[in-house]
Amino acid sequence: MIFKMIKSEGIAHHSYFLGAEGKAAVIDPRRDVDVYLDLAQDNDLQICYIFETHRNEDYVIGSVELQKAAGGEIYHGSQFDFDYGNPVYENDKFRLGGLELEVLETPGHTKESLSLVLWDVSVSSVAQMVFTGDVIFAGETGRIDFYGTRNRPQMAEFLYNSLFKKILPLGEQVILCPAHGAGSVCGADIREQDYTTAGYEIKTNHQLQLSKEEFIKEKSEEDMYYPPYFKKMEELNQKGAPLLNRLPFLRPLSPLSFKNLKNEGFQVLDVRKPTSFAGGHIKGSLNIWRDGVSAFAGWFLNYQDPILIVDDSNPIRDKMQRALIRLGYDNLYGYLRGGFPSWYLQAEDVETIKLHTVQQLHKRLFNDDFYLLDVRKIVDRKKGFIEGSKHIYAGLIPQRLDEIHRNQEIVVYCDSGYKSTMVASYLLQNGYQNVGSVLGSMRAWIKASYPVVQSK
Amino acid sequence: MIFKMIKSEGIAHHSYFLGAEGKAAVIDPRRDVDVYLDLAQDNDLQICYIFETHRNEDYVIGSVELQKAAGGEIYHGSQFDFDYGNPVYENDKFRLGGLELEVLETPGHTKESLSLVLWDVSVSSVAQMVFTGDVIFAGETGRIDFYGTRNRPQMAEFLYNSLFKKILPLGEQVILCPAHGAGSVCGADIREQDYTTAGYEIKTNHQLQLSKEEFIKEKSEEDMYYPPYFKKMEELNQKGAPLLNRLPFLRPLSPLSFKNLKNEGFQVLDVRKPTSFAGGHIKGSLNIWRDGVSAFAGWFLNYQDPILIVDDSNPIRDKMQRALIRLGYDNLYGYLRGGFPSWYLQAEDVETIKLHTVQQLHKRLFNDDFYLLDVRKIVDRKKGFIEGSKHIYAGLIPQRLDEIHRNQEIVVYCDSGYKSTMVASYLLQNGYQNVGSVLGSMRAWIKASYPVVQSK
Amino acid sequence: MIFKMIKSEGIAHHSYFLGAEGKAAVIDPRRDVDVYLDLAQDNDLQICYIFETHRNEDYVIGSVELQKAAGGEIYHGSQFDFDYGNPVYENDKFRLGGLELEVLETPGHTKESLSLVLWDVSVSSVAQMVFTGDVIFAGETGRIDFYGTRNRPQMAEFLYNSLFKKILPLGEQVILCPAHGAGSVCGADIREQDYTTAGYEIKTNHQLQLSKEEFIKEKSEEDMYYPPYFKKMEELNQKGAPLLNRLPFLRPLSPLSFKNLKNEGFQVLDVRKPTSFAGGHIKGSLNIWRDGVSAFAGWFLNYQDPILIVDDSNPIRDKMQRALIRLGYDNLYGYLRGGFPSWYLQAEDVETIKLHTVQQLHKRLFNDDFYLLDVRKIVDRKKGFIEGSKHIYAGLIPQRLDEIHRNQEIVVYCDSGYKSTMVASYLLQNGYQNVGSVLGSMRAWIKASYPVVQSK
Amino acid sequence: MIFKMIKSEGIAHHSYFLGAEGKAAVIDPRRDVDVYLDLAQDNDLQICYIFETHRNEDYVIGSVELQKAAGGEIYHGSQFDFDYGNPVYENDKFRLGGLELEVLETPGHTKESLSLVLWDVSVSSVAQMVFTGDVIFAGETGRIDFYGTRNRPQMAEFLYNSLFKKILPLGEQVILCPAHGAGSVCGADIREQDYTTAGYEIKTNHQLQLSKEEFIKEKSEEDMYYPPYFKKMEELNQKGAPLLNRLPFLRPLSPLSFKNLKNEGFQVLDVRKPTSFAGGHIKGSLNIWRDGVSAFAGWFLNYQDPILIVDDSNPIRDKMQRALIRLGYDNLYGYLRGGFPSWYLQAEDVETIKLHTVQQLHKRLFNDDFYLLDVRKIVDRKKGFIEGSKHIYAGLIPQRLDEIHRNQEIVVYCDSGYKSTMVASYLLQNGYQNVGSVLGSMRAWIKASYPVVQSK
Repeated sequence: MIFKMIKSEGIAHHSYFLGAEGKAAVIDPRRDVDVYLDLAQDNDLQICYIFETHRNEDYVIGSVELQKAAGGEIYHGSQFDFDYGNPVYENDKFRLGGLELEVLETPGHTKESLSLVLWDVSVSSVAQMVFTGDVIFAGETGRIDFYGTRNRPQMAEFLYNSLFKKILPLGEQVILCPAHGAGSVCGADIREQDYTTAGYEIKTNHQLQLSKEEFIKEKSEEDMYYPPYFKKMEELNQKGAPLLNRLPFLRPLSPLSFKNLKNEGFQVLDVRKPTSFAGGHIKGSLNIWRDGVSAFAGWFLNYQDPILIVDDSNPIRDKMQRALIRLGYDNLYGYLRGGFPSWYLQAEDVETIKLHTVQQLHKRLFNDDFYLLDVRKIVDRKKGFIEGSKHIYAGLIPQRLDEIHRNQEIVVYCDSGYKSTMVASYLLQNGYQNVGSVLGSMRAWIKASYPVVQSK
Repeated sequence: MIFKMIKSEGIAHHSYFLGAEGKAAVIDPRRDVDVYLDLAQDNDLQICYIFETHRNEDYVIGSVELQKAAGGEIYHGSQFDFDYGNPVYENDKFRLGGLELEVLETPGHTKESLSLVLWDVSVSSVAQMVFTGDVIFAGETGRIDFYGTRNRPQMAEFLYNSLFKKILPLGEQVILCPAHGAGSVCGADIREQDYTTAGYEIKTNHQLQLSKEEFIKEKSEEDMYYPPYFKKMEELNQKGAPLLNRLPFLRPLSPLSFKNLKNEGFQVLDVRKPTSFAGGHIKGSLNIWRDGVSAFAGWFLNYQDPILIVDDSNPIRDKMQRALIRLGYDNLYGYLRGGFPSWYLQAEDVETIKLHTVQQLHKRLFNDDFYLLDVRKIVDRKKGFIEGSKHIYAGLIPQRLDEIHRNQEIVVYCDSGYKSTMVASYLLQNGYQNVGSVLGSMRAWIKASYPVVQSK
Repeated sequence: MIFKMIKSEGIAHHSYFLGAEGKAAVIDPRRDVDVYLDLAQDNDLQICYIFETHRNEDYVIGSVELQKAAGGEIYHGSQFDFDYGNPVYENDKFRLGGLELEVLETPGHTKESLSLVLWDVSVSSVAQMVFTGDVIFAGETGRIDFYGTRNRPQMAEFLYNSLFKKILPLGEQVILCPAHGAGSVCGADIREQDYTTAGYEIKTNHQLQLSKEEFIKEKSEEDMYYPPYFKKMEELNQKGAPLLNRLPFLRPLSPLSFKNLKNEGFQVLDVRKPTSFAGGHIKGSLNIWRDGVSAFAGWFLNYQDPILIVDDSNPIRDKMQRALIRLGYDNLYGYLRGGFPSWYLQAEDVETIKLHTVQQLHKRLFNDDFYLLDVRKIVDRKKGFIEGSKHIYAGLIPQRLDEIHRNQEIVVYCDSGYKSTMVASYLLQNGYQNVGSVLGSMRAWIKASYPVVQSK
Repeated sequence: MIFKMIKSEGIAHHSYFLGAEGKAAVIDPRRDVDVYLDLAQDNDLQICYIFETHRNEDYVIGSVELQKAAGGEIYHGSQFDFDYGNPVYENDKFRLGGLELEVLETPGHTKESLSLVLWDVSVSSVAQMVFTGDVIFAGETGRIDFYGTRNRPQMAEFLYNSLFKKILPLGEQVILCPAHGAGSVCGADIREQDYTTAGYEIKTNHQLQLSKEEFIKEKSEEDMYYPPYFKKMEELNQKGAPLLNRLPFLRPLSPLSFKNLKNEGFQVLDVRKPTSFAGGHIKGSLNIWRDGVSAFAGWFLNYQDPILIVDDSNPIRDKMQRALIRLGYDNLYGYLRGGFPSWYLQAEDVETIKLHTVQQLHKRLFNDDFYLLDVRKIVDRKKGFIEGSKHIYAGLIPQRLDEIHRNQEIVVYCDSGYKSTMVASYLLQNGYQNVGSVLGSMRAWIKASYPVVQSK
C-alpha cells in the first residue's frame, strides 16, 4: 500500500494519494497535478478514482486536469450540480486491491460534502483512516458560513450530525486525514499536526466537548473572512477548470519591457520582504511577500489584467507559478529579469516606505500626530491592541478605503510587519502620500513589553 | 511540526525524523544518513537528539555517523552496555519546541528496548504518537528469541507487560510508529500498513486478543530464522560502526580485471532476475536478485573477501551500495562494467541453469527421477508442498549442504523462482552439476491448479 | 552567454540551446521539449528563435511543441514547403544580445538545409561556432541519398559546395556543432567526439581530402539504409507534429489485462537483454533491447496497433516514452506491471530461444546442418564473415522473409548478439519454429580467434 | 568519450572531466568533489588521473579530497615543491582508452604551470583540445605578478614563450579549455565565452597581436589586486587541504543564540541585496551580497572567528557552504534561522543605511558637503568618475581606513551599488556614523546622462 499526503503550502491544502495492487485513488487533487502523475508512474499504479470531498472555494481543483493526463473517473457529492464527473451516495464502495473506500455523506461545511472511509478488507472492517475533507481538522471543525448568516445554525447542525453520527462512531482508532492544515482559510484555528485520530480529537478538540446547542451557537458566531476570489473558485470548480497541461512559462522581462507593460495597465506584484520593499520599489506596485501570496493575492489582484512579478533577483523556479495558478490566476505574465536591482541600474524612479521599529513607534506614540492602523484579523484585535489605533482587516482595506483620510501620516501595523507593509503599498498605489509600516509589529511590541489595551 | 517516516527498503526498516521550532530528533537512523541531513537542512533544523529504540541485529545503525555529521546527542536504553551515547531511563523527557518526547522502558524484543511517546504540550498530555521500536508492528509483535530458547518465555512475558502496561494504556487514539514494516525479519508476519493506532491493533491484532499465558506460549513457539550476519550487526551496533562519510565508490571493472579479481578469490554476486541468470552467467557466481540482496546477502556472503557485482547492464546508481553497507558489507569492491554482456562479448565461458515451467515440472514429476528441493520458510512449507519434495530453508542450505547428494539431478523450488535460482546458483558454486530451478514455483503451481500435499 | 548541447541518446541527435541577455535560441529541438523549457526558466531567458536546420527524417522535431509552450518564432530553409514557421534566406541575421546568428544556405543532405554561424559582435566578425545540421559531422559528412539514386551525384555536389564554399571558408578556428553524434543513421560513420573544429576536420576528415570528383563518387556509392518510419517522420515534420503537452502516461497492466490486449492485436515489445529474453518470454513478442529501440523500432513496429512493453521489472521512468514518442509512436499504450516475472507467476506460457556461445557454434559449424544467418550491416559484412552464412540486414528481414526457409534450424548472428536475438524473435513471431541466436556473435567469434572469410 | 566542463560560479573556475572506455581524468578539481564522483559513477568510469595545471591561489583545490573518495593518482608540475602527488614532465603521456593526454610545461602564470594536450590516437596526432590552466583565457592571458614586481618581466617572457612556442603551434583547430571564465581574479578581463580555439584567439585576442617586447611591457604593467586570502590558498594548496568528506552542516540559530555568539566575537556576514540591507540590519554585520561572497569574502573575513550568515529568509541550501569552503573558510558556523525578520520580530536593535538614488546624489553634489568615495577597480576609475570623488578600491579599504575621516558624512559609490553598500557596512562596523551608498551607482549615473570626468 502506498499512502501519501501531499501538502500545498500557502493554501495549506492536503490532498491524498492511495495505491495498492496496481490501482490508485487521488483525493482532492490540486491543479498542478505533476506530483500525482509522478507518484503513479514511480509506483506503477493506474489512477482509477479521483474523489472530491466537496466543491472547494479556496483553490482550483485539479480533477479534470488529472483525468485528462492519466485517466480515471471523477466522483463527488450528489447534493451539488457539477458540470463534470459522477455523483456518489452514502455507502458507495470502491476497491483498490485489498483496500476499500466507502462514501459517507457528511454535510455541514457544504451541502454536498462527503468523507471517505478506508479499511483493509483482508484484516477486518475496522476503519483505518477517514478522509474528512473540511468536516474536521486537527483541533478545529470546518467553517459553516458559506450559505449566508441565516443558514449558519442549519449548516452547523448538519456539521454536528456529520461529526457525531458519521465520523466519530468509526472509533477512536481511526486516523483522520483532513483537507487542510494549519494556516488554511477553511478553519478558524487549525493545529499544526499532520496526523490525528478520532480518539485524539475526542479527547482534545474543544468543539467536540460542547453540547449540540453550544456547538451550533459557537460555530454560528465564528468570525471568518470571505475573500473576493472565492466566487471565482466556486465558478471554476463547478464547471471544471481550464487545462494547464504545463506550468505557464514565466516571461523574463527587461526593465524597458516591464515599464511599458506596467504603463499599459498590467498589475505589478512585488514579492519581496518588508525591508527590501521599503528600501526601494517601483512606484505603483503591490507588495505581498512570497509566502503570503496564496493567502492575499485573492483579496487584491484581479483576473483580467496580466500580472508582473518583482523579486529580489530572478524568482525561484515554479514557486510563484504554482501559487498563483492554484488560485486561478492564469493571467500571470512575466517578471522583471534580474530582480529589483535591474530597475535602479537603469536609473528608473525608486519609491520608498518609512519603516518604524517598535522602539521608534513607542517614542512617537503620544507625541506625534498620525493615524495608527491595525490590519490584523478581528480575532487577534480582540486579544489586545496598541492604544489609539483604528482597526480594518488587511483584506478589507480595498472596500473600506474611504474610512482612511488622505491628509495625514498613516502608520500601519499587523502581527509581524508583513501584512502592514502590504497594506502600506496598497495605500501608496491608491494615492496616499505619507505611509509607514511597523517592523515586527505586535510580536515585537509585546516582546519589548510595551503596553497593550483591550476594548471593553 | 515536521514528521517524516523514512523507509529503507529490503530491510523494511522505518526510521523517523521529527522537527519543531528549529530542533530535530531522529529515531533509529540508518547508516547512510544523507536523508536526515537533507531533511534537517531543508527545514532549517538542528539535530539535537538521536534515539536508538534498541541495539539492532538486522542492520547497522547510523547514530555515530549522524552525530559526526550534524551534532546532537545519542540516547539508548540503559540495560545494555553500549560503547557510545548516553543511557536514558523511564520518564526521561526531551523537548522540541512545544513537543515532548518521553521514554518508556519496553523490554521484550531485547532487554534494553525502549519506546518514545510524543505529545504536544500546548494541547494536552494525551499521547499523539508512540515510537515503539520492535515492540509492536502493524498486525504483529516483536520477536523474542534472541536470548536462546530457554529465555523465550521470560522475554515473551516482558513483551506482554510492555504492551499491556506501557503502550496500550496510552489510549486507543495514539498513532503507533514501529521500526519495521512488512517484509522485515524482526517480526513473523508484519502487515503492509504504514500507520496504525493502538485502537486499531487492539481491535484487529490477533496476538493482543490472547491471554497472557496464550501470548507467552505463542511467542515462545514462533519459527524465526537467525541469519549469521546478525552477530556482525550486534558487534557493530554495540561498538558504533566505522564512519562511511560517503557511499563507497563502486569501481567499474573491465571483464579482464573482473576475471583476475575473481580468480584471486573475490566474491561474485550476480543480482539479475532468474531468467537472465539462468540464460547465462559467470561460473562461480552467486545469484541474489536485486531486491533480495537485503534479505539474503547476510546468509551467503562473508565480510572478508571483497564483493564484485554483476548486473544486466551497469548497476543502478547507489542502490547496491546502500543495500550492502546497511548490512555492514564495507568489503563491496566493484562491478562488471557493461553488465553480463561484456563478459560473453569477450568470448569468456558462460554457464547456464535449466529452468522448468510448472507445466514441465508437473509432467516430469512422477516419471523422472530427480531430487526435488523446497527452500521456502518452514511456515510456508507447513501450509502445503509438492509431493515428494524435501525441505531445507534457503538460508540454511550452506550449513546443511551434506544432506543433498551430488550424483543426481536436483530441481529447486520456492515461492516464486527467485530463492530457488539463488539456491541453484549456490549449489553450482559448490560443485553440484545438474541443477535446475522452477519458474514461478509454488505461486504458479497453485495458479495452475496442480496438487499440493501437507505432512500429517 | 549560455551554450548547451542537448544529446538525445539512441537517435544520437544533438540540439543546441543558446542564450544571452535575456533571449534564447533553440536549434533543432526534439519533441519532448521540457529540457529547453527548464534551461530557459533556470537561466531567465525568453525563447525568441527556434531554428530547424532541415526537415528531419529520423525523428519528430519539437518546434511547434516548443513554440506553443514558450513562444518564439520558428525558422527553416526556404527550399521546402513547410506547413508552419517562416522561411529564412542566405545572410539573414538574428540577434541575442551581443551575439549574432547568420544563415548560410547549405544544401546537400536535403535541398533546404541551412547552417547558422555564430559570432560575438562585440569582439569581431570572426566566426566562433557554426551549427551545421547534417552537412558535416565529426569525421563524416551528411548522407545525400534521400532524393533517389539518380539524384545522388547532384546532391553530393551540392554538399561539396556547401562544405568548401560555405562552411570551411569560415576559418579553421570555427567550432562545428552538428546535429548528430556517433551512432546516428544520418551519417555513415560518425566519430565519437562532441566538439570539433573546421581546422580539425580539414586535417583529419577523410572526405575533405578528396577532390570534388572523388567526393561525389564516394558519397554517391555510400551504402545507407532507409527505415520505413522515415516516411512518417517526413510527413510529421512537414506538417508540424501533434502536441504532446506531457509525456504519455504509461499504463501499468496486470498479466490478465496484458494478455487480453495482446489477444486483441496490440504489439508486444520486449525490451530485455538477449539472455533474459532467451531465458523466457511471452509468445508473440518482439525483442528489441532497451538501447536499441531508437534504432530498430522504426523497422518493425507499426503506427496503428497500440504498443505494450515488457521489461525485466517495471520499466525505468520516462525512458521508453521518450524513445518512442521521438519516433512518433504516440500509440504507446502500457506495460506489464512487475515485468516478465509477473507473467510466469500466473503460470502463463513461456517460450524460450536457444542461445549458442561462439564455442558451441564453432563446434557445430561443419558438423551440423542449419541455416546460419548474418544480419549485420552490409559494410560490416564486407569486412569478413563466418563461412557458410547468408546475409540479410536485420532491418530488411520483414521484407525479405521469404528468402528464409521454414523447415530447418536457423541460427542468427550479428555483431554482439542483440540484433540477432531481435531477428530471432521476429522469426518466432512469424511462425518459424527452430530459431537460435549467437551470444557475443562476431565480437566474441573474433576474440576467440575463429576463422573469418571474405567474399571475393 | 565523456567531456564536461564544470563551472564554479563566483570564482569563475572551470574544471574538466574526461572519460573514455572506463577510465576518467579530472583537471583542476574543486574541493566539493561530489560533481566528479557523480559523473564518474553515472558514466561507469574509474577516476585514474587527477591533474593540477598549477598551484592555485584563488581557491582550494580538491585533488586530495577526490583521491580519497575515488582513487586515482595526482599529478602536477615539477617546478614547485608540493607535499603530495607526483611531478610530471614535458611530453609525459597518459591514456584514456583511445585518447591521449600529453604534458606541456607552460610557465608564466606560475613557474610550475603546465598544459595538457588531448588527441584521439585512433584518428590522428592533430590536437583536439588543450587544457591551458591559467596560461590563456578567452580574450586574455594569465596574470604574471605573483613573484613580485621585479620578476614580472621574466614571468611575462615565460608566458610569451609558453603561448608562442607551446600552445599556438598546436594549430588553429585546437579547442582551448582554460581554468577560468569571465569574472575570475586570475585574468584582467576575460571574455564571457565558454569555448574558444587557438585560431579564434590568434585572430581576436589583443595580446596575441603584440610583439614580444610589447607583450612583456603590457603584462608587466597590468593592475591586478592581490587579496589577503591568496596566502592561505597557497599554503593549503602546497600541503593539500584538510578533508571535507561532506559539506559542513550549517547550524540554524535562534535570534537569541545568534546574538550570544555574535557577542562572543563571531563574524556576522549579511548576504542580502543593498536595498534589504540598507532597509534594516544587525549592527556590526558585514554586507556582501550573495553572488559577491566568492570575490570579496577573502578581503574582509578572517579564518579564525566562526562565521554566521544572515539572509532574507533561510539561506538557499548548499550555496553559501560551497562558496565559502572553496575559499578555505571551514570556520563557517551557522545562520540566523528565519532570516533577518526573525531578528526584528524579537524587537532587537535594527540599524539602517541611507541609500541615495543617482538623482538625489546629483542634486546634492555641489550643494552639500560630504565625502564621496569611489570604490571601483582602478581600471574602471581610469575610464571616468564623478567629479570630486576620492578613490580607494573596495578590497583595500581595510588597510587604508585611516585615509577616511570620521567627522563627516560619507557617500560611497561603485559600479552598481553592491560594493558600495559592502564598504558602507564595513565603515559602520568600524565606528563611522554617517554613511550612505548610491543605488545603481555609475551604471545608473551614466544611464541618467550625468557628467563623468577623467583625471589628466
